[in-house]
Parts: sequence; structure tokens; C-alpha cells
Amino acid sequence: MNVEVINTGSELLIGQVINTNVGLLGQELLSLGLTIHRQTTVPDGEGIKDVIGESIRRSDIILITGGLGPTEDDLTREMVSDYLGTKLIEDQDLVKGIRNRIESNGAAMRDINRKQAMVPDGAIVLKNDNGTAPGLYIKPSDKTERTHIYLLPGPPRELMPIFREQVVPSIKNALLEREIEIPSCVNIFFSGLGESELASRIDEVIFDKKGSFDLGYCIKPGGVVVRCIGDPEIVSSVSEKIRKEFPENYISNDHESLPAVVVEELMKRNESVSIAESCTGGAIANLITDISGSSNVFSVGFVTYANSAKNEILGVDNNDLNEFGAVSEPVVRAMAEGCLERSGADYAVAVSGIAGPTGGTKEKPVGTAFIAIASHRKPTFVGVYCFRVERLIFKEKVSMTAINLLRKRIIGLL
Amino acid sequence: MNVEVINTGSELLIGQVINTNVGLLGQELLSLGLTIHRQTTVPDGEGIKDVIGESIRRSDIILITGGLGPTEDDLTREMVSDYLGTKLIEDQDLVKGIRNRIESNGAAMRDINRKQAMVPDGAIVLKNDNGTAPGLYIKPSDKTERTHIYLLPGPPRELMPIFREQVVPSIKNALLEREIEIPSCVNIFFSGLGESELASRIDEVIFDKKGSFDLGYCIKPGGVVVRCIGDPEIVSSVSEKIRKEFPENYISNDHESLPAVVVEELMKRNESVSIAESCTGGAIANLITDISGSSNVFSVGFVTYANSAKNEILGVDNNDLNEFGAVSEPVVRAMAEGCLERSGADYAVAVSGIAGPTGGTKEKPVGTAFIAIASHRKPTFVGVYCFRVERLIFKEKVSMTAINLLRKRIIGLL
Repeated sequence: MNVEVINTGSELLIGQVINTNVGLLGQELLSLGLTIHRQTTVPDGEGIKDVIGESIRRSDIILITGGLGPTEDDLTREMVSDYLGTKLIEDQDLVKGIRNRIESNGAAMRDINRKQAMVPDGAIVLKNDNGTAPGLYIKPSDKTERTHIYLLPGPPRELMPIFREQVVPSIKNALLEREIEIPSCVNIFFSGLGESELASRIDEVIFDKKGSFDLGYCIKPGGVVVRCIGDPEIVSSVSEKIRKEFPENYISNDHESLPAVVVEELMKRNESVSIAESCTGGAIANLITDISGSSNVFSVGFVTYANSAKNEILGVDNNDLNEFGAVSEPVVRAMAEGCLERSGADYAVAVSGIAGPTGGTKEKPVGTAFIAIASHRKPTFVGVYCFRVERLIFKEKVSMTAINLLRKRIIGLL
Repeated sequence: MNVEVINTGSELLIGQVINTNVGLLGQELLSLGLTIHRQTTVPDGEGIKDVIGESIRRSDIILITGGLGPTEDDLTREMVSDYLGTKLIEDQDLVKGIRNRIESNGAAMRDINRKQAMVPDGAIVLKNDNGTAPGLYIKPSDKTERTHIYLLPGPPRELMPIFREQVVPSIKNALLEREIEIPSCVNIFFSGLGESELASRIDEVIFDKKGSFDLGYCIKPGGVVVRCIGDPEIVSSVSEKIRKEFPENYISNDHESLPAVVVEELMKRNESVSIAESCTGGAIANLITDISGSSNVFSVGFVTYANSAKNEILGVDNNDLNEFGAVSEPVVRAMAEGCLERSGADYAVAVSGIAGPTGGTKEKPVGTAFIAIASHRKPTFVGVYCFRVERLIFKEKVSMTAINLLRKRIIGLL
């Protein structure tokens, strides 16, 4: 089944509104075994008609969002009925519903609001409990041939309830009618390996099964998601094989967030972490506290940007700071151990590096970062890394590498 | 000039990645007086070729993002050269650059990485300082007729620097060649006012000039950008009028980043700030240290998530914590003043609030935040706010509000 999405609205093309509808619809469609074959955004206006015509020739299902409002530039329903050669008829139930909604908000019904009650002859109304723009479903006919067309409001809070409650059952019916089976989809999240390294090793592992399922790669902050889609049995055995190939790098089949996994692991063990940051400037604490529930496992972080702060707050020896510099093995080790002691946490993470664009030397170029993980009963781990990337990416890469090292220490791999 | 954007990548169509590139490109194009006429997303695969062919027939400029990676599903460069009937040639400078980047990250160059050094015959390489995928520019030719084609990497942090530094000048050349005038564009960044409030007050201010230039609004972290586009003289007088209408909220004509403005103001005055965060969990320090040069004005931050940390590290009275709770006027005031004293900075910012989704009470619902600004010679300011939004947006809104209050204190408005 070929599915296409058409989003209408000039605001999407000038950066005023980010199009989150494609992703929301795409996720829901996956669970039906369907993927979007093409997505198009068109500005408000008559250009919509061309795009609808082209799409009908290619697709079994078209989801059109936006342009169902009361104003002049809302033209989706007009363009669709124009293309299909059907009349627009005022639906009296809709007029009543729109009037009720507007009046219950303390406003008065205006003439332009009646526009939203116009329905292409033969279309089925999809009730909107969260706004005045109803959805519309146009069944396959002579003019659309095999294509099911759904017109849906643009705001995600109006769109998604209509989609889940009314469009999904309608699509399921269409699938049943054509006797199409629903495939399986497994996402596997890895950390600490690049996309290309993963891909070439996975190619070796599953070379005998190639072609019998779909494989996709997606870079996420802190890792890469490998996605297997196809026959449930093949996907289950292949994804298991891929997972087992990278035991140190496998994170989760559920999460696609390294900080969420770490917070979960700490909560499971009733343990806590504290953080001492220099070059990441609070980014690690920020990532951890993005996770709801993090207050159970994180009580304090120190952003010791200046040398004096490293000494006064974490107890780093001034001689070490002078002799080796702030970006060095002894200093980052002392930061982690000082942080562990002062916080009373079970683990401490410390980072110090050169985010750039200035501050690099020949021995320690921009991009250098030392990361330390301290905990009780095990010697402190210190690693040195180099990420020659723009300042913000550097902060993210150092943060995620540190969180992954923390994860390994927690589960006993480091 | 007809501009189209083609985004490739199955991850965009199944909701694994939200497409922010369209908006980013759309905003930048506006300042050249250009708008996107159509945007299409296609899955990885050979389908890209059809879309490129259709788009070439309609457009003067095509911006294609994604599919330039090293893996099998990255097919953009292959499909474009296939369509154009040009050969792919290995570029030795690119091979060297890719090898250096990979090896400096401690990994080994693999055969599949060489794919990223393949360049369609005659294409111009657009250097990527933030990743291994170079951009490519294909000039109009017999096969493309009037169309300029730009192939760009998918990750926004790689895409946008290439776009701003290399594609924009190239598009400007194309406009000049066709004797199309480049309009003037002024961006005015305001903070502390909503989009609709700004828009309705601006409407009153410039009602006599309406229609003689374009006005756009764009919500940014920490504020709203008002964009005036049109004839240089009109834009200059109108933007000046708009700026003067909101003296307390006007931030800058250059920056669209509140943290950058604050770091600049502090550097100008040779002053410094320290930060004590609870509910924002490091987000404020992270935003400040995103700015290059921030180490001159920021030496230390404390993420005191737990009550014990507020007491031990910042000296907040345990009686106050018990009596008023961590989210209260006396506690956030003590946090700011303790932070100012311990850090020796000229200003201290402190925040404490309820990020949610749990932890709210009837008196202090989820979304409540206290923000304090302390400095020498002036009494400490404490404000209470409520942002009933999702956890991550809450952290951002509280952070940006605090940074804006700091800005006002620095320049004497608070």
C-alpha cells in the first residue's frame, strides 16, 4: 500500500512552524506495517490541486493536513472537490457543532466559519473534538480510482486524535479488504560505535539473510538506531543476532536516549551520580535532568569552568593545575575523585577539555577531552578523546561519551 | 526564482527524526527574498531519482539534503549523477580529509568511507568542517537546463554552516546573473513578549506603511525575531520604528541568541556571572557556555538538585527549606546570594521550580518557578513565574527568562 502525506501551509516553508505531523503520522503508520512513500509540503493556494493530482496517480492512501480553517488562504477542501469534480454541500450538523463550539468560547459565529461546514458530496465527516475543522474521508471512486483520501486539520492536537480514533480503523479496513499482512519492526539502539562501523559489521553478520527484510540506520544523540522491518520471524531472529554482536555497545530495544538508560539503571540499583564539568559547561547535568525521575539519582553537579573553581570547589591541587594544565589526566582524575567525596554519590563523572574555537596547543589541540569515572571499590577510569568538531557538537559528543562510560561502569563493563 | 527542497531519509518518514531543515533553510532563504515553492521528503532508495527529475522541470534552485553518508542506503549522490548521466569520480583531497577526520577520532578508515569522496563529474565540492559528508554543487547544464542543484548533508549542524557560508553566496551570484534584486532584510530580536502581542502592537505602529514591505515573525529560544524584508530605505525606517516601540524588550539586530548578548554585555563591562540551578538542572550554565568566549565571564555554576546540596554548597538555611520548601522566595533568594558570595562573581542567577510531570501541589502547581538575580550594591530581585508546559520546554523557558532578567540587571533595567 502506497501512502503519501501532503502538508499544506506557507508557515511550514518559512520556518515559522516546524512540521511535526509527518513524524507523528509516520510512527503510527509503522504499527500498521505501512511507511510513507512520499511527503510533500505546498504553500497555501491553488498549487495544492496539482500536488493532489500527482499524488492520486501514485498512491493508495493520501493523508492531507492543514488548510481546513475558516480564512481565505485555507483552500484544501475547495481544491480537493475541484479536482474530483464534486460539489461542496453545507452539512447542517457541522454548522450546529461549529456554532456551539464558538459560542461556548464566548465568541460569535461569523459567516466565514460556515466554510468549515462545507463537505464534498459523498465524503464522510471525521469528527474533531478539539477544534472547529472536521476531518473528511473520501472513498475510492471513478475519479480517485484506488485511492483513499483523508483531509485532516493541521494542528497536531486536533490531527492526532482524529487519526488514531477514526483514520487508523478505516485504514485497517482497507488493508483487510486487500488481504495485506502487518509486518514487524524492531529498533536497536547502540552507543560508542559510528554508523559506518556498525553497518559494515552488521553486513557481515547477516549476509545470508540479506534482502529478506529491511534495514535502516539513524543517528541519535549518543548513538545509532538500527531498524529491522519485515516478516516477524525473520526480524526477531535477525535483530537478536545483531544485538548479540555488539554486547558492549548494545543499549536498548526500548529507549533511544542514553541519559534515559543511565537514569533507569541507577534507579534500578538505588544508586546516584554526581557530575563535575569543565568543557561541557553543564551539558551533562542538563542531559541527565532532562529525564523525568532524575532527581532520584542525581543530587548535585559542579560546573568548574575556571581553574580557581576546580581547586576551591573540588579540591584539585594547584600544583597539578600549574604543572599539567586543566586539560590533563591528573586534573580530571582529581575532579572526579573530589566530586565523589564531596557529593557522597556512588559514581562521579568529570570532564575537562578544549571546546574551541580557541585555546588549543600543539600537544593538546582543540577537541581534546579527558573524561574520568570514579566510584567506590574500583580504581578511577580516565580516558582521553579527541573530537575535532564545532563547539556545540564537541560539547554533545563529550557529554554522550561520558554518559556512555558511566553506563559501562554502572553495569560492570568498565 | 523557484526554489524546491528535497529531503531524503526514511528516518524522516517514520518519526525517528523531525525535519527541522526545511524551516532552517526557509528562514535563510527569506533574507534573500526567496521562498520555498515545494518541499518533498523521499525515503532512502532509488525513488529519489524520480523526485529529482520532476523537481528539475519546475525549479531554478533545488536544495537536496541527506543521503550523503557512507552506508548502502545513502544514495543521493548516486541518484543525482545517474539522472544527469555523469560519472562519479573519487576526489583525492576528499579521501585525505575523510581519512584525517576518522583517524583523529581514533577510528580506522574503511572501504565504505571512500564512497563519501565520490563526486559527480563537474560538480563543485562544498567543504564540510563538521562531518565527513561534503556538500556538492551542480551548475546548470544541458541536462539540468536552468536549475542549480545543491546536495547537502542531513544533520542540521553540518548542513547550516555549509548553507550559510557556501550556498548563500552561490545563490546570490545566480540572482545577480539574472539581474534579480536582492531585497534588504532586517531581523529584530525581542525578548519577554509573545508573538501575538508583538504582532498586534506592530500592526498599529506601521499601519500607514503596510503592504510596502514583508513582515515575518519567528519564535526563537528566549524571544521572537521580527523580520522586515523589502526596499532598503523602507525596511530601514520601519525597522527603526519597530525597535523603538519596545525599548525594554529590544535585544539586538545582530544576535538571535539571548546568551550571546549577555556574554557580550559582560565582556564589555569586564564583569562575571555565576549560576545556581535547581529545576533547570544545568541548562542555564549549558546555554552560557555554548557561547565561545564565555570562559571570560563565567567561572562556576552549581547544580544543586537536592535540598542537602542547596544547604551544604550554597548555605541555604535548612529551616527555610523545611518551612517554605525548595521552591520558594526565601530559598531562591538565599541560593542567589550564597552563589554570589561563594563565587566572587559580579552577578548570580538562581532558579528553583517544579519541572514536572510530577511534584506539583495545589499552591505550587507543576510549572511554578522562582528566579533570583543577585549583585553587589543592589537588592536581590526575586520573581515568580508559571510555565505550564512539557518538562524540556519548561527548562528552556525558565532558563531563557532567567538569562533575560540577568541581561536587564546588567544594563540597568532591573
